[in-house]
Amino acid sequence: MSHSPLPETERTRHRRLREQGSRDRAQLDAILAAGFVCHLGVVVDGCPMVVPTVYGADGTNLYFHGSVASRSLVASPDALVCVTVTHVDGLVLSRSVFEHGVNYRSAMVYGVPRLVTDPAEKLAGLRLLTEQSAPGQWDYARRPDRKELAATALLALPLDEASVKIRVGPPDDGDGPDAGLDVWAGVLPMSAVFGEPEADPALREGIALPAHIAARRG
Amino acid sequence: MSHSPLPETERTRHRRLREQGSRDRAQLDAILAAGFVCHLGVVVDGCPMVVPTVYGADGTNLYFHGSVASRSLVASPDALVCVTVTHVDGLVLSRSVFEHGVNYRSAMVYGVPRLVTDPAEKLAGLRLLTEQSAPGQWDYARRPDRKELAATALLALPLDEASVKIRVGPPDDGDGPDAGLDVWAGVLPMSAVFGEPEADPALREGIALPAHIAARRG
Repeated sequence: MSHSPLPETERTRHRRLREQGSRDRAQLDAILAAGFVCHLGVVVDGCPMVVPTVYGADGTNLYFHGSVASRSLVASPDALVCVTVTHVDGLVLSRSVFEHGVNYRSAMVYGVPRLVTDPAEKLAGLRLLTEQSAPGQWDYARRPDRKELAATALLALPLDEASVKIRVGPPDDGDGPDAGLDVWAGVLPMSAVFGEPEADPALREGIALPAHIAARRG
Repeated sequence: MSHSPLPETERTRHRRLREQGSRDRAQLDAILAAGFVCHLGVVVDGCPMVVPTVYGADGTNLYFHGSVASRSLVASPDALVCVTVTHVDGLVLSRSVFEHGVNYRSAMVYGVPRLVTDPAEKLAGLRLLTEQSAPGQWDYARRPDRKELAATALLALPLDEASVKIRVGPPDDGDGPDAGLDVWAGVLPMSAVFGEPEADPALREGIALPAHIAARRG
């Protein structure tokens, strides 16, 4: 896993001032590691299409299922995609509506995904993708057999061209004229949490909830 | 607010079987009402670009800030966009890795956004956008003045062409051969919750947390 800064390209140069842009590789890896659903943008017949899908990332590649993007990627396997991962961390409640905003961490990755054909990489990529959302399940559940592997198209997007945007901290209008208003200002934090596991109604009797799932309750 | 079914177009026809597609208007409205961050997809010089941004929706239009998409939308104001709103509701932990998945609700809206120039619609759209993430704040915080309104570009995307995808319920492999395995299966629910409000360190003394913000704690 490289720690060189991400190269700046025309697409990843940050244009706006209020959000904190970065091309820091550690930040990119941290944002990708903190989630498991991305929004995949592809161009189909000149039109943008944004599809949510699960992913796994290892610092070098971001893996996702090829079927999600099949309409465009099968037709043009060398087409550029944009994958965006966003974590919403809170509402920024300023004194003025104009200064309202969101605390968030977001990563955008651009590139041409590659169809993974090497069996070892495909298995490793699927493991990564599974473990990113459901750690422990690769070793616990039944792994894909030969037929299932053949039925799965896996794509690898290199993490070479990416940018990160982060907003943290309190409102920005605490030192301006609005600070004199009788208006509460601050941040309402937000996070995604796991609830109580719900057993499949079809689950056979006597199968206990494994510790690696139970441990995820928020 | 119309309750006619959403028209089926080449882009919104559902191609995959395992996810439940719909063009039901009530479902679309419910998914849009349940969030406040969307992923906006635009095409810039032939490349897809997916940007997270806040929105407000009223059953007829989806409003978002024009600045987010300025690079493409200012250049080509009649360019198609795709706005996707996704709620992740849980992990589907099946007996086999192959059947793992996510419970989610997702809406995709396609169209050409219109720059809102009518002052009354602009104010109503900004109110909608503010209230969607921070209900109560439009009447509580300082509203935009003439200068702030002029500095804000608001876009309206008609909710005419849209599709909805939803996955709910337990794993799909409860009635297949894998049901005999000694593997726990079920759903790990997930939701976004608000935490304890954090006052701006610059907040003047004596300003109490208003009830409409306090009430949102999860």
